[in-house]
Amino acid sequence: MFTDTFLEVISKEGVVSIVSCSDNEAHVVNTWNSYLVIPHDGKLLIPAYAMRKTEKKTLQNSRVLLTVGSKEVNGHRGPGAGFRIEGTAKFISSGPEFDMMKAKFSFLTRVLEVTVTLLTQTL
Amino acid sequence: MFTDTFLEVISKEGVVSIVSCSDNEAHVVNTWNSYLVIPHDGKLLIPAYAMRKTEKKTLQNSRVLLTVGSKEVNGHRGPGAGFRIEGTAKFISSGPEFDMMKAKFSFLTRVLEVTVTLLTQTL
Repeated sequence: MFTDTFLEVISKEGVVSIVSCSDNEAHVVNTWNSYLVIPHDGKLLIPAYAMRKTEKKTLQNSRVLLTVGSKEVNGHRGPGAGFRIEGTAKFISSGPEFDMMKAKFSFLTRVLEVTVTLLTQTL
Repeated sequence: MFTDTFLEVISKEGVVSIVSCSDNEAHVVNTWNSYLVIPHDGKLLIPAYAMRKTEKKTLQNSRVLLTVGSKEVNGHRGPGAGFRIEGTAKFISSGPEFDMMKAKFSFLTRVLEVTVTLLTQTL
């Protein structure tokens, strides 16, 4: 599911957006490309420090949208590649994946786990 | 309203997210920092090629959220600054601002005008 272009994009630094939605109100928080960890194909782990509103919203509606891109990677129309990710979110606060992430990112309080259902290269 | 740090961030290349929401479903599209044009403080103009779903959603609910950031600019906690923008969106397809934007970005079909109501430095 994760293509070579996607892996190249997330190897460059940049801003990731994480969009959640409940009560007909969207919310968005950001992380860095370099904070994305792929434990296996189709799953993303993201360190969460605050993200309290995102957590509250995903408890009501677990569906999230993420975007990531880099002008340094060639996409469909020359320089610049971008992706939209659809998935379901879960916040985890214990277990082997939490421990692995805590060792990398000491500031985290929970880990946002995204199970990807669709990866679309938009650019 | 637009701070020096904000102006410095958008002078670096990166990915902007534009989030809209209607029918309890969020939608997100992206543009580049370098595509943001500021005609005057508190307003952003963005070239729109497709963005049809964003346009449809903003006709129902004009409130949008945008995020922008750069790891190259120092923020609240060292390297990396990021902003969340709240505003209202309108798509325009004629007039002096449309003509000015079309001269810069020949590919556009409409211009997304965002009137900013709140700018928050998140990082």
